[in-house]
Amino acid sequence: MQSPRLKAARVARLATTDPDDRPHLVPIVFALDGDTLYSAVDRKPKRSSTLRRIENARARPDVTVLVDHYEENWGGLWWIRLRGRARVLDDGEEHDHALALLQEKYPQYRAEPPEGPVLAVDVTEVREWTS
Amino acid sequence: MQSPRLKAARVARLATTDPDDRPHLVPIVFALDGDTLYSAVDRKPKRSSTLRRIENARARPDVTVLVDHYEENWGGLWWIRLRGRARVLDDGEEHDHALALLQEKYPQYRAEPPEGPVLAVDVTEVREWTS
Repeated sequence: MQSPRLKAARVARLATTDPDDRPHLVPIVFALDGDTLYSAVDRKPKRSSTLRRIENARARPDVTVLVDHYEENWGGLWWIRLRGRARVLDDGEEHDHALALLQEKYPQYRAEPPEGPVLAVDVTEVREWTS
Repeated sequence: MQSPRLKAARVARLATTDPDDRPHLVPIVFALDGDTLYSAVDRKPKRSSTLRRIENARARPDVTVLVDHYEENWGGLWWIRLRGRARVLDDGEEHDHALALLQEKYPQYRAEPPEGPVLAVDVTEVREWTS
């Protein structure tokens, strides 16, 4: 988890598993602390579907995260795939620590702190690919 | 599937399901024809893992594709999520048609045509989100 590309990335994609066994995908912003990746639900969800990723992670904590880089020079492509176990933090010390890390990385979160739960992913596998 | 954002996007992320029930994620380039999305395996795979997405799709054809846009102005974020059923095209008329569409969209494929199978996803659900 020491990859400079991973640390510098501003966006990732989180895959969870829906109750009907299909993969679910959303873009996320994230912060890292050691082998744990944190993301938050940005604002008060208006509909239950906004929390689908959270409900999925509670029910089936094996999740996958992808960070990738695209450019038209395909010699410069790369991606980093993380597999791990998710935990949902509704409040508490680790929740607050994660929010602080997210606010440090993203000024956008300082103006408007995310109000939903934090998703922690304890990363167990990292695979990096470069073209 | 008439979204100009979707048509213009150069990269997407494909989620399939691994044999151990975990979600699998890779970035893909893609072309659209009606309600079907096509992507190809870029080059001769050197290792079986390169074909993981294909083997996953053969075994469990419910897949999800995400196209998203990130910028530091979070008022400009958007994503489009497609769910569909995958088919693997090893050769034949539709395979060749898909390759032609991919080569039309991506000059990179004209110089070096992808030599692996084509993944076709018949899209059954489209969800678009704008911040």
